[in-house]
Amino acid sequence: MTQKKILLLLGPNLNMVGVREQGVYGTETAESIQQEVQALAQKLGFSLDVFQSNHEGELIDRIHAMRGVYDGCILNAGALTHYSYALRDAISCVHGIPFIETHMSNIYAREEFRHTSVLAPVCAGQISGFGKTSYFLALYALQSLL
Amino acid sequence: MTQKKILLLLGPNLNMVGVREQGVYGTETAESIQQEVQALAQKLGFSLDVFQSNHEGELIDRIHAMRGVYDGCILNAGALTHYSYALRDAISCVHGIPFIETHMSNIYAREEFRHTSVLAPVCAGQISGFGKTSYFLALYALQSLL
Amino acid sequence: MTQKKILLLLGPNLNMVGVREQGVYGTETAESIQQEVQALAQKLGFSLDVFQSNHEGELIDRIHAMRGVYDGCILNAGALTHYSYALRDAISCVHGIPFIETHMSNIYAREEFRHTSVLAPVCAGQISGFGKTSYFLALYALQSLL
Amino acid sequence: MTQKKILLLLGPNLNMVGVREQGVYGTETAESIQQEVQALAQKLGFSLDVFQSNHEGELIDRIHAMRGVYDGCILNAGALTHYSYALRDAISCVHGIPFIETHMSNIYAREEFRHTSVLAPVCAGQISGFGKTSYFLALYALQSLL
Amino acid sequence: MTQKKILLLLGPNLNMVGVREQGVYGTETAESIQQEVQALAQKLGFSLDVFQSNHEGELIDRIHAMRGVYDGCILNAGALTHYSYALRDAISCVHGIPFIETHMSNIYAREEFRHTSVLAPVCAGQISGFGKTSYFLALYALQSLL
Amino acid sequence: MTQKKILLLLGPNLNMVGVREQGVYGTETAESIQQEVQALAQKLGFSLDVFQSNHEGELIDRIHAMRGVYDGCILNAGALTHYSYALRDAISCVHGIPFIETHMSNIYAREEFRHTSVLAPVCAGQISGFGKTSYFLALYALQSLL
Amino acid sequence: MTQKKILLLLGPNLNMVGVREQGVYGTETAESIQQEVQALAQKLGFSLDVFQSNHEGELIDRIHAMRGVYDGCILNAGALTHYSYALRDAISCVHGIPFIETHMSNIYAREEFRHTSVLAPVCAGQISGFGKTSYFLALYALQSLL
Amino acid sequence: MTQKKILLLLGPNLNMVGVREQGVYGTETAESIQQEVQALAQKLGFSLDVFQSNHEGELIDRIHAMRGVYDGCILNAGALTHYSYALRDAISCVHGIPFIETHMSNIYAREEFRHTSVLAPVCAGQISGFGKTSYFLALYALQSLL
Amino acid sequence: MTQKKILLLLGPNLNMVGVREQGVYGTETAESIQQEVQALAQKLGFSLDVFQSNHEGELIDRIHAMRGVYDGCILNAGALTHYSYALRDAISCVHGIPFIETHMSNIYAREEFRHTSVLAPVCAGQISGFGKTSYFLALYALQSLL
Amino acid sequence: MTQKKILLLLGPNLNMVGVREQGVYGTETAESIQQEVQALAQKLGFSLDVFQSNHEGELIDRIHAMRGVYDGCILNAGALTHYSYALRDAISCVHGIPFIETHMSNIYAREEFRHTSVLAPVCAGQISGFGKTSYFLALYALQSLL
Amino acid sequence: MTQKKILLLLGPNLNMVGVREQGVYGTETAESIQQEVQALAQKLGFSLDVFQSNHEGELIDRIHAMRGVYDGCILNAGALTHYSYALRDAISCVHGIPFIETHMSNIYAREEFRHTSVLAPVCAGQISGFGKTSYFLALYALQSLL
Amino acid sequence: MTQKKILLLLGPNLNMVGVREQGVYGTETAESIQQEVQALAQKLGFSLDVFQSNHEGELIDRIHAMRGVYDGCILNAGALTHYSYALRDAISCVHGIPFIETHMSNIYAREEFRHTSVLAPVCAGQISGFGKTSYFLALYALQSLL
Repeated sequence: MTQKKILLLLGPNLNMVGVREQGVYGTETAESIQQEVQALAQKLGFSLDVFQSNHEGELIDRIHAMRGVYDGCILNAGALTHYSYALRDAISCVHGIPFIETHMSNIYAREEFRHTSVLAPVCAGQISGFGKTSYFLALYALQSLL
Repeated sequence: MTQKKILLLLGPNLNMVGVREQGVYGTETAESIQQEVQALAQKLGFSLDVFQSNHEGELIDRIHAMRGVYDGCILNAGALTHYSYALRDAISCVHGIPFIETHMSNIYAREEFRHTSVLAPVCAGQISGFGKTSYFLALYALQSLL
Repeated sequence: MTQKKILLLLGPNLNMVGVREQGVYGTETAESIQQEVQALAQKLGFSLDVFQSNHEGELIDRIHAMRGVYDGCILNAGALTHYSYALRDAISCVHGIPFIETHMSNIYAREEFRHTSVLAPVCAGQISGFGKTSYFLALYALQSLL
Repeated sequence: MTQKKILLLLGPNLNMVGVREQGVYGTETAESIQQEVQALAQKLGFSLDVFQSNHEGELIDRIHAMRGVYDGCILNAGALTHYSYALRDAISCVHGIPFIETHMSNIYAREEFRHTSVLAPVCAGQISGFGKTSYFLALYALQSLL
Repeated sequence: MTQKKILLLLGPNLNMVGVREQGVYGTETAESIQQEVQALAQKLGFSLDVFQSNHEGELIDRIHAMRGVYDGCILNAGALTHYSYALRDAISCVHGIPFIETHMSNIYAREEFRHTSVLAPVCAGQISGFGKTSYFLALYALQSLL
Repeated sequence: MTQKKILLLLGPNLNMVGVREQGVYGTETAESIQQEVQALAQKLGFSLDVFQSNHEGELIDRIHAMRGVYDGCILNAGALTHYSYALRDAISCVHGIPFIETHMSNIYAREEFRHTSVLAPVCAGQISGFGKTSYFLALYALQSLL
Repeated sequence: MTQKKILLLLGPNLNMVGVREQGVYGTETAESIQQEVQALAQKLGFSLDVFQSNHEGELIDRIHAMRGVYDGCILNAGALTHYSYALRDAISCVHGIPFIETHMSNIYAREEFRHTSVLAPVCAGQISGFGKTSYFLALYALQSLL
Repeated sequence: MTQKKILLLLGPNLNMVGVREQGVYGTETAESIQQEVQALAQKLGFSLDVFQSNHEGELIDRIHAMRGVYDGCILNAGALTHYSYALRDAISCVHGIPFIETHMSNIYAREEFRHTSVLAPVCAGQISGFGKTSYFLALYALQSLL
Repeated sequence: MTQKKILLLLGPNLNMVGVREQGVYGTETAESIQQEVQALAQKLGFSLDVFQSNHEGELIDRIHAMRGVYDGCILNAGALTHYSYALRDAISCVHGIPFIETHMSNIYAREEFRHTSVLAPVCAGQISGFGKTSYFLALYALQSLL
Repeated sequence: MTQKKILLLLGPNLNMVGVREQGVYGTETAESIQQEVQALAQKLGFSLDVFQSNHEGELIDRIHAMRGVYDGCILNAGALTHYSYALRDAISCVHGIPFIETHMSNIYAREEFRHTSVLAPVCAGQISGFGKTSYFLALYALQSLL
Repeated sequence: MTQKKILLLLGPNLNMVGVREQGVYGTETAESIQQEVQALAQKLGFSLDVFQSNHEGELIDRIHAMRGVYDGCILNAGALTHYSYALRDAISCVHGIPFIETHMSNIYAREEFRHTSVLAPVCAGQISGFGKTSYFLALYALQSLL
Repeated sequence: MTQKKILLLLGPNLNMVGVREQGVYGTETAESIQQEVQALAQKLGFSLDVFQSNHEGELIDRIHAMRGVYDGCILNAGALTHYSYALRDAISCVHGIPFIETHMSNIYAREEFRHTSVLAPVCAGQISGFGKTSYFLALYALQSLL
């Protein structure tokens, strides 16, 4: 069996984790967390790429380019989660590939506007609230789905 | 280190999984799924109890009785998720114990009334949409939290 | 042809009919009405059981137990009609069996909160406003459906 | 005792039953259903007239003309059910005569806008979801009321 | 100065005044009230025609035909007041002619749905709540406007 | 028959008519309009007092003092119309005395917040949109009511 | 290939175009516009009939009568667009025939209530905002669909 | 005069007072508070029973059983206050007996969902925000009512 | 211990109790009720002042002047309860002094607009529905708090 | 050029700044802040008057009296900002004079009800969130406008 | 007459047509459709450029650059249609150039969020629901407008 | 004391000021306004950089890069103000640096959708409605804050 290829796709402001709002996100940096995700991915036999952007358009371009290349996606779209119907349509465009919507914080215990995800209806599932462990769980979820 | 004790708490109609709405929940029975969860729990070094009830009151009684006995809870409250503020208060009563809100189906891809969880704000996190794998992920999440 | 088996399932406070709010429900007691329903059921060739409970959980348990035993259900869920999504899911669990949602009073001529039924979308039909005659009509409806 | 006189009053598009949306209404024509209603009415000792119109105004005129002539009405107002306050006022004008709001389909399992009836609060009761049997039940209901 | 010509235009169910809901509208008949309005109109030097219909379309036709014939209109549109945008557009079509929206009952002290008038924004003014006197006031208003 | 006593009660900013927003209210001053109302009142055999205040509390005090002194009230409460439940309660306190809610402008053709009157449900009727003529109509209305 | 037959169906007040609200609809009369539509229809090889009515019921009757006679419909329902669920149901009744919802004005740049079309979900498409050209575009649309 | 009999009826999670959310409810246990209420009841000449349950159904059963036995009820329904229409109906069933809705915390200074009580409209009055003193005040209220 | 000083602060229209809406408030006059409150205050060892005004501004002035003078406040703000954010801010200004929001009628069993209190979130607690006894209970509540 | 005359108009509770909610407003007193505003006004060549009142009516009276006397207004209406349409109308009455809506706290970072200003649409602009500096900025804004 | 220059401007995900959701958009590729539009444009005497981007900012930049270069625009903004107020403002910036809002699918027959266009009020008109024919109609519309 | 460094950050379409909607923004170009802001900044002892972009992503990148470089920010985010939660999160990421939300037009006197700012709750304050002077006031505000 060939190795499965996964994309960890990160939206606006997620490059600032470890710096930004430490009460919510902790002090570990984005880089160190991504390395841990990379390590678990390899242990589970996945090939993992990471892509972060603060630009909605670059995220959409990247999703389009996933076709025929990636087998699954772990997506933390940051605040775009709550209003980007364009991102939602991009996910629908490649709907053979499962997307796992992932959040480090419990979005349902924060501000009202974070309680709605416009992406959830077109994702396979959602994981929210376990800090960096949310990404690990998403890897296990993909292992089960693929 | 002593063994951690976990409760898998299941709400109304979840005894009917495998029978009920097979398009949504698949054909594996509730019992066979619980056995798989039990197996993984033991592998991760947890002691796991299972309790299912169609009675809101019995679920609340059971949560109260968790104090001093259990270290964590995997909760799938079924449709009570969407309106039982009494269950929510029960969780708050034992707030030292982390609850993982878990759903087999992607609640955000179903009827409107299932998009709101009154329990989420008092749980540690939420996992939704991966079939029986949702329960496995919840075990990994507790492993990370405890 | 074997005799059809029907359950008359009554929710919270319906044991108090004849005592409770006589302006709305009249003075005939719950027992005497049930006897009349029983009589008509027999005349139409049905076998009829009656079950009343003020506990949402007991009603759900009973619905689960209907599988393979009953051919149809006349359901007056009382005030649970307006908010019990758990009861609704229970009906979906046994969806081969037709449920007739039945109300003695015209729920659309009473308080605002009684105008919405969360059960109606998963029932075969609804009869509302004819006093005890509502139950008789439900029997005729089942006669037509079975 | 003199024979009771009943009007079966049908609103917009109900002349198209059997032709229109057969998935919802079946393939029996409006005429053949009306004949069956007529037959049952006679068996129950009623004199039954039928009037169908696609004009809100004609329905109102006919309701006004019921005074002193008819003893009850079986009303299926079609889509006017959901917004015609003028029809509602017409029913109030002749309020000594009971109106049975009747629908062939289960209006609560269809589009959102069909879940509200502006006529229900001024009718004696409502029957919804049993195909042509809905009309038969309405006859039994009138038998009980008159 | 030539005599001014006025139309008293009455919508659905207003032919039933005196018969309908006597608690709201009193026992004087529609005819006798119209005669009193006629009498005052003549005393004020107006020529008054009366037209009542239960058909929205006939009311619209009549409004169109007012152009070049009438100088003002006293309009009681009955329940169409609350939803007929078509009637509203008809009034806009002849906007050189002032319309006085008139109600016998105080529509703001009745059911919620009667609190909104879709006609008011295109009328010259509104009079509500004075029984038949409302029509007399509307005549005085036209006297002042013309 | 003794002469009837009427109060013309004017709320905030109505002392500025003729100065304020001339596009809406015209250029005639508050004083000159009040004189015309006074003249018509006398002609109709009423004794009329006028009271204007920009203070909600003074308006309430004045309404309380009406008991046993006045037979009717023409009330233009200005913007208090839209939110002063205290004024509404004051009117209820003297409910034997009819209040005519009066507006010079057509409040339904202005900003959204002016479309709701919290006073209307406790007044005898409402007149809106005829400029100073609104007050004259209110006098005629009282003539009819008293 | 036989000639296609098309109905231009016009709702309330559209006979008044050229007279009514010239700022919105221009000064060309309804008749002259219909002649231009007729001319283009012939040029495109269609047989075109025109029917206008201010009566909701007549429009519904006419739609019912389209079955087996017409191949397509250009519909400008006027203000009925915004609330007539009865008209919507009529269109559903003849759903093999494509309806093009057409408006001369841009309904989304006018009053709030004109922003909602209850007909759009059952039409093939919608054209809005090009004056009489809207009708020409609808002809081209039908040319493409048929 | 015979001694009046009162029921102190406590809903879900109120057995956990003193343990649960001490920032809101203080550290005194449910038992010790109930003893103080008992003491004051006796001092005021009442006979007091206490019943706590986490089951909506048991609370309803108990309310039904109050008929002919108790003279008044102090009710703290916990979170059921905000959604249990079944409990509300139970109170209506025994409407000769006054219910005092009682809350230890000020429900209007907590989460949004706690600001609405579906029970209040069928209770005699409401006391909220005084800790255990709320129960004492409820006793004084019953003393005044009985 | 020095004697505690309490203010009984009464808002718009509460001077009219005994006169106003006797069905709601009874026939005892405001004065006689205040005397009873005074008597109980003295018995409990309080010094009590009473201040009533129909002016929002005077009530705010009086609350400001409470600082350093009074130890607690029994507040019945009348209809200002439902919209006076200015009164709410005044209470926040003196937040060391506990305010007991008090209503004679059960505000939750009256009109919709009376169901919301903008003052409740900044008061210590709320008592509603016991007639003049509401004031007595507020005294007991202050006795407990001070 | 003659000296420009400016009014600093302060609404309910703003006399309590320095005393009230020091977490929000700081500890500087209202008087000391007004002296600093006075000083800057003189430096910029303005003549400045200050008027504070807790009475909506007095604020309206004062605004009316501004005509022909003042050239601009710095308005902090306190909580009246959120509901006083009467104050809004008063500003419209003197609309040749620019009003600068000013708030010391950032009203958009406080309670929901403070996020809406009914005054903003009739003011020249709004400044919010800079403590006493908000008033200084308002002076600069007037310097630019006048 | 010089040749008119038109921009076909396509937003997020429209490069995926033919690949994406074939049930909605068909199997023809974006490129082949654009060639057909190009062909018709030339036949009608237009010079047509095409620009597609998944980046909101690039679309805005391109619109700004249209000034003085293009005579009209056919805009299909994809999902940005439903929330991009920034795109709306960009269209307002170049308001001498007519924009034709164009959609291949009938946006009113899809998900709720697609029923609202924030762009429509600033466009000349809207065409929706005719597949690639929508673009052809837009060309005819521009032919009529230019 | 070292010189403070400030960023003037401008969002979509603000490069078009002077060209775009001159009725709202005047005819001075973006460049000339920025030069005036630069001049005042230098006079107040600030070092000022200007950055404008129509790309949400570039604005977010730039805000991230502010850390350790800038002491304050004057932000006019254009239409992103009303929906960009991603921009809001970016501001939270650098929360030691005060942001002054600034608008040239009075956003509360324009379209409904401009009345809500999703950025305001995480900014220090807001200035709206003074044309280019708004930027000058923001500089003074920063002078006071830094």
